[in-house]
Amino acid sequence: MGEFDLIERFFTRPARRAAVGVGDDCAVFEVGAGMQLATSTDMLVEGRHFLSTVLPERLGHKALAVNLSDLAACGAAPLAFTLALALPRADAAFLEGFSRGLLALADAHGCELIGGDTTQGPLNICITVFGEVPRGQALLRRGARAGDDIYVSGTVGDARLALEVFRATHALDGAGFEQVRRAMELPQPRVALGQALRGIATSAIDVSDGLLGDLSHILRRSDVGAVIEADLLPRSDVMKAQPLPLQRLCTLAGGDDYELVFTAPADRAAAVLDAAKTAKVAVTRIGRARSKTGLELIDLQGRTLENSFGSFDHFRS
Amino acid sequence: MGEFDLIERFFTRPARRAAVGVGDDCAVFEVGAGMQLATSTDMLVEGRHFLSTVLPERLGHKALAVNLSDLAACGAAPLAFTLALALPRADAAFLEGFSRGLLALADAHGCELIGGDTTQGPLNICITVFGEVPRGQALLRRGARAGDDIYVSGTVGDARLALEVFRATHALDGAGFEQVRRAMELPQPRVALGQALRGIATSAIDVSDGLLGDLSHILRRSDVGAVIEADLLPRSDVMKAQPLPLQRLCTLAGGDDYELVFTAPADRAAAVLDAAKTAKVAVTRIGRARSKTGLELIDLQGRTLENSFGSFDHFRS
Repeated sequence: MGEFDLIERFFTRPARRAAVGVGDDCAVFEVGAGMQLATSTDMLVEGRHFLSTVLPERLGHKALAVNLSDLAACGAAPLAFTLALALPRADAAFLEGFSRGLLALADAHGCELIGGDTTQGPLNICITVFGEVPRGQALLRRGARAGDDIYVSGTVGDARLALEVFRATHALDGAGFEQVRRAMELPQPRVALGQALRGIATSAIDVSDGLLGDLSHILRRSDVGAVIEADLLPRSDVMKAQPLPLQRLCTLAGGDDYELVFTAPADRAAAVLDAAKTAKVAVTRIGRARSKTGLELIDLQGRTLENSFGSFDHFRS
Repeated sequence: MGEFDLIERFFTRPARRAAVGVGDDCAVFEVGAGMQLATSTDMLVEGRHFLSTVLPERLGHKALAVNLSDLAACGAAPLAFTLALALPRADAAFLEGFSRGLLALADAHGCELIGGDTTQGPLNICITVFGEVPRGQALLRRGARAGDDIYVSGTVGDARLALEVFRATHALDGAGFEQVRRAMELPQPRVALGQALRGIATSAIDVSDGLLGDLSHILRRSDVGAVIEADLLPRSDVMKAQPLPLQRLCTLAGGDDYELVFTAPADRAAAVLDAAKTAKVAVTRIGRARSKTGLELIDLQGRTLENSFGSFDHFRS
C-alpha cells in the first residue's frame, strides 16, 4: 500500500465545513464573522507521550484529544484539524485502528480532518487543530487576579497512577488498573466546559505537564501567587485508595490529565457551577490566587506542605 | 537547557499579527474580511526529506519553504505558522542555526511564528502554515481544461541532480555542485507568483514529488490528459551540461523542486507572462492539456518518448 492509497483509504472523507479538504496543496476554510481563529499543535512521540502497548484506536483518540484540550483551555469551538504522520511502514492494521479512534473523537466534537502529510520514519504524530472564538474572548494564561478562586475540572492523577503501574513501581488490581489506564489512554478534552467558561474564568490552562507546573504558568503570566489546598484535589475512588504520598505525587504533579485549571472571581462561583452543569463536568475549587507570588501548598489543617514537585520538561526528565 | 528555556531563547518573538502568539495554549489570530484561511502541513524526517549533512540554517529555511510552497500553489498570502519539533537533545548550536534560517525566510514573507511544540525524540520537523486567499479564488488541482497551456516556473531538476551527487552516482565540479546543492537545500517558494496567478491559472500544484507525478495529480483531478514536450523543460546551465538521460530523469521526475506547475487558457498567455514579470520569476510553457486522458511525452521532433518515470511515494521508494 502506497502513501496516496493509505491517505485515500483511511483518512479521506467528503469535506463538510471545509471549502477544500484532504487532497489539494492546501485545505481552505472560513472562520465565522466576528470570530478569531485559535490554533494549537502537539507532537506525540513513542515512549514520551505514549507507550508501545497502547491500542492504535486509543492512540488515535489521544493524539486528537490533547489538541482539543488546548482549544478547550482557550474556550474555542473546534472546527478542523490536520494530521502529519511518520510511520516506520504502511501498516494497515495500525492505520485502521488509529483512524477509527481519531475520527470517532473528531466526529464527537464536529472537528473535520482537512489535510495532512504522511511519510516514512520513526513513529511520530503531529496534529494541528483549529477552532474559533468570538473576538477578544479567548481564555488566556494571563488574567488571574489576587482573590480569584482556583478550580480544576474532573479528577486528576489517574494517568500518572497508570504510568507508575506500567513502570512497575506500584501495583493495582485488574479493575483499578483498567480504570486508570483509560484515564491515561482515553482523556476527555473539556471542550464544552472551556466554551461555557468564556466571560467567567479570568485565566485557564489544560493540565498536561502536572497541575502545579501548569498552574505556575498561569501565576507567572498573571503576576500573582496562589495557595493550593492539596487535599481538596479531586480524585477517583481508585486514587483515594492509594497511599497519601502517591496520591499527592499523582494529583499535584502527575501530568497527562487534560483537565482544565482555571481562575474566576469569588463572586462568580455560582456562574462557574452553572458552566460546569451546562458542560456536564464536575469542577472543584482547590485554592485561591493571592498577590504574594509563589505557590504555597497547605493541608486541611492549613499547615504548609513542602512543594518538591517539579513540572514535566521533555528535555529534563 | 530545558524545553521552556529553548522555546524562549530561539523561538519567542513579540507577536505582531497574532492577538496571542507563542506561549499560551493556543495562538489566536484573525483572517481578513472576505478571506478564506488556507492551511497546509509538512513533516520532514532525516534521510527522507533532508540529509544529515545539511547545515541547520538551511534546514530551517527548507522546513518553512516547503510549506510556503503549498500556500503558493493555492495562490494564498502567508500569515503565520506553527512549528513542532522533536529533537534527540536540546542542542543550542543546532537550534541557533535552525531558528536563524527559519525566521529569516519567515520574515521575508511576513509569516509569523505563532506557536508550536518541542519534545525529545528522533529528529522530526512538522510545520503547519496559514495563509489567506479571497473567498473562492484559491488555485486548486482541479480546474484544468482541454486546450489549456501547461507551464512551470523557474528551472527544475537541480535538487535531484544534487541528490545524485550525494549518492555518488554522478559527479560535478565544485561550483556546479554548490549551485545544485543550493537548489536542494534553499528552495525559493513561489509565493508572489501564486498570488499573481489568481484569476489567470485554471489549476496549480507545487513540484515536490517530481514534475510528471505532480502534474498527474492535476490531470486526474481535472479529468484531462496532457502532452508534455520534454525538451522544453527549463534547466539551469549546470543541468544543460549533463547527459540527456540524466537531464530527463532529473527534470521530469526529480522532485524537491518547489516550482509551480500550472495551467492557463491559451488566450491568457500574455496575462501569465505579466504575472511572472510581477513576481520576478521565469515561467515556461511545457505542453498542453487535452481531453484524451493520460500523459504523453514528446521530443522536439514530436516523437513520443517512453514515460517510465514514476512519482515519489514515501512508502514505495
